[in-house]
Amino acid sequence: MKFSMERAVLLKAVSQAQSVVERRNTIPILANVLIEAEGDTVQFRATDLDIEVVDRAPAKVERAGSTTVSAVILNEIVRKLPDGALVTLSEDGAAGRLTVEAGRSNFQLATLPKEDFPVMASSEYSANFTAKAEVLRRLFDKSKFAISTEETRYYLNGVYMHISETEDGRMLRCVATDGHRLARIDAPLPSGAENMPGVIVPRKTVGELRKLLDEDDRDIAVSVSETKVRFATEEITLTSKVIDGTFPDYTRVIPQNNARRLEVDAAEFAKAVDRVATVSSERSRAVKMQLDEDRLVLSVNAPDSGAAEEELAVAYGDEKLEIGFNAKYLLEIASQVDRENAVFLFNSAGDPTLMREGNDTSAVYVVMPMRV
Amino acid sequence: MKFSMERAVLLKAVSQAQSVVERRNTIPILANVLIEAEGDTVQFRATDLDIEVVDRAPAKVERAGSTTVSAVILNEIVRKLPDGALVTLSEDGAAGRLTVEAGRSNFQLATLPKEDFPVMASSEYSANFTAKAEVLRRLFDKSKFAISTEETRYYLNGVYMHISETEDGRMLRCVATDGHRLARIDAPLPSGAENMPGVIVPRKTVGELRKLLDEDDRDIAVSVSETKVRFATEEITLTSKVIDGTFPDYTRVIPQNNARRLEVDAAEFAKAVDRVATVSSERSRAVKMQLDEDRLVLSVNAPDSGAAEEELAVAYGDEKLEIGFNAKYLLEIASQVDRENAVFLFNSAGDPTLMREGNDTSAVYVVMPMRV
Repeated sequence: MKFSMERAVLLKAVSQAQSVVERRNTIPILANVLIEAEGDTVQFRATDLDIEVVDRAPAKVERAGSTTVSAVILNEIVRKLPDGALVTLSEDGAAGRLTVEAGRSNFQLATLPKEDFPVMASSEYSANFTAKAEVLRRLFDKSKFAISTEETRYYLNGVYMHISETEDGRMLRCVATDGHRLARIDAPLPSGAENMPGVIVPRKTVGELRKLLDEDDRDIAVSVSETKVRFATEEITLTSKVIDGTFPDYTRVIPQNNARRLEVDAAEFAKAVDRVATVSSERSRAVKMQLDEDRLVLSVNAPDSGAAEEELAVAYGDEKLEIGFNAKYLLEIASQVDRENAVFLFNSAGDPTLMREGNDTSAVYVVMPMRV
Repeated sequence: MKFSMERAVLLKAVSQAQSVVERRNTIPILANVLIEAEGDTVQFRATDLDIEVVDRAPAKVERAGSTTVSAVILNEIVRKLPDGALVTLSEDGAAGRLTVEAGRSNFQLATLPKEDFPVMASSEYSANFTAKAEVLRRLFDKSKFAISTEETRYYLNGVYMHISETEDGRMLRCVATDGHRLARIDAPLPSGAENMPGVIVPRKTVGELRKLLDEDDRDIAVSVSETKVRFATEEITLTSKVIDGTFPDYTRVIPQNNARRLEVDAAEFAKAVDRVATVSSERSRAVKMQLDEDRLVLSVNAPDSGAAEEELAVAYGDEKLEIGFNAKYLLEIASQVDRENAVFLFNSAGDPTLMREGNDTSAVYVVMPMRV
C-alpha cells in the first residue's frame, strides 16, 4: 500500500474516524484505524464494536492495499504536521510497519493485521430515506439533553426515533427522557421512511452523528433496521447498533389539559433562573416560581448560604400558582427556545408541566416539579 | 454597611479576591471574603492563611461597616448580573445577612462575623523596592515551569528570588528547579532591594502574582522580609508567606565549560520535538538528538507503537554527539525562547546541558539528559 494526500484532507478523515475509538481499549485492534487504499480513494474505518465510522477521501494511490495503525497516534501526527504538507503513507506488508512521511519527518508506526479488524456485519435495512442535515440536527439537538445517564435504565440511554401519528399527519419523531424531563421533537416524515421501525439511537451515536450535520443543506442518507441505524454523506458513513430495549410509552407523560398559561422571554427567564440558583450550592437546586397577574417571582432558599429572589414581567392571566423545579432542568429546556417566547402550561404544583416555543407543537418539553 | 458600585468594578475586585480562596475549606470563614466599606472605598480581603489578597475599589458608601460572605457565591452572583447594572450591598448587622440588590434581583447571603476573619499579621520588611510589571513577569514567567511539584521537596515548591553577584554586577535573580531541569533568570537589581533576603515564593503565590502583571508599564511595589513577600499596585495588595526552607546551592548544577554549541530556530525545534514524541505514549518520552556537521536528527523509538525521525538544518560545528532528553522538558525550555535562536551548550551525553536565548546570559536553562 502506498498513497499521498494533502495534510488537511488526511486530518479531516482521520480525526473523524478516530473520534469513535474508545481511549481505554482492552482489545488492541479496537485502538486502530483500518486504512484501505484502492483506485483513487482511501477509506479510514474505526469502530468500538457498537459504532462504526468510515471516512472516504481522494488520494493519489500508487499501490493499493490496506493495514491498521493506532488511530490516536496517526491523528496526532497528522495534526502536528505543518499546514499544506503532502503526506505519504506506505507499507510493504512484511515489516509490520506503516511509514508516514512528510518533508523531513519520517514515522514508522506499528501495525496490526487487517484481518483482525472487526468490520461491522452489513444489515438489511427496512427503511431508507434522505433528510436534510438541519432537520436531523434539530431532531437530535433539541432532544439529546434529556437522555438518561442511568445505566440501569439502558433503554433511556438514547433518543427514541420513530414514526408518530399526529393531527398534522405522520411525523418523524425523536423523544428522550430521564424520568424527570422529556423532550419530544417532530419533523415531517421523509418519503421512504414509512416502514421505519422505532429505534433507540445511543447517546454516543447521537454525538458522532452531530459531526455530519454541520452544513444545513447537506443531504443525509438514513437507513434503519430493527437492530441498526446508518447515517451517510458522500464522505462519511456512520453505522450504529441501536439499543436493544423497549422505550416506555411516553405519551401518557405528556399533559394534555394543562390550562394555566405563562408566556415569558426565554433568554431573560434563563438568566434570572441562573442568577437566583447561585445562592444554592446543592446539586439539585430547587427554584420556586410564584405566578400572579402578569408577574413571575423566581426564588431560591438555601438555609446555609442565603436566599435569592427576582421578579419578571410576564404574560400570565390565570389563578395564582406556586410551583418548584430543578434549576438545571429549567435552564436546559429554556435554552432550547431560539425563536419565540417560551410558553409554559401548568396544571397544579404537583403535576408535570409542559413547555414549548410559542404555539409551535413540533417541539414539546415536559418537566416534573419539585416540592419547595 | 451600605454601598453601591458598578457591576464591572465590583466583579473585578471580587473575582481577584476570591481566586485565593481554596475550594475545599474545613474552616468556614476561609471561604468568605471580608468586605470593609469606609470613606469612598471598599476593600475586599480573602486569604488561605498563606496568601492574603486585598482589593480596593471606589464606591458610593452610604453607611460604613464590614462583614464577610462566601467569596464564591458573591463572585458568581456579580458575574451573572447584567452588564452595566448598579449593585447595592447592605447589611444591618442584626439579621446576619448581606443584601445584594441590582434591578429586580435581590439576594440575601449568609454572613459570618468579621471578628472571626483571620487578617494576616503585618510584618517588618527589610527591603522595599519598585519594579515594572514586565520585569517581574519575565522573572517569574520564565522560571515557574521548573518549579517542583514533589511535596516532600517542599523547598523546591517555589521560585527562589534573591540577589546574586554576577560579572555584570548585582542582579535580582529568580531560580526554580525540580532536579531534572532548572531555570535561572536575572534582572538589574532595583534600587531599595539591596538588603533583600533570599526568599522562596510559593507556586500559588507566583500564580496569583501573575494577575497583577498584565500591564507592562505598571509599577509594582515589592516588599520582602525573611518570612513574607508583598506585591502591591494601587488597587491590589498580595501578601504571602514564603517557604520556610533552604533553597539548595544551584550554582554547582549550572555547567560552566560546556563547549559543543548548537544553534537552532526554537520554534522549528519545538515543533519537530513535539512531532517525533507523538509515537510514544509513555509519560517520560525520551527524544534522541544526533548531532553532526550542521545537522540535527531528532528521533524517538517506542518498541510498542513505532519510531519517528526528523532532520533539522542547524548550526553545529563540533564533534558528533548523541544525547537523549525528556521530550516534555525540551518543549518547555524551547518555549521560553521568544526573540532569538535557541543556543544549546553540551558537554557529553551524560552531563547537564545548558540552553539560552542567543548569547543572552540573563536567562539560562539547564536540563539533565536521559539515557537513550
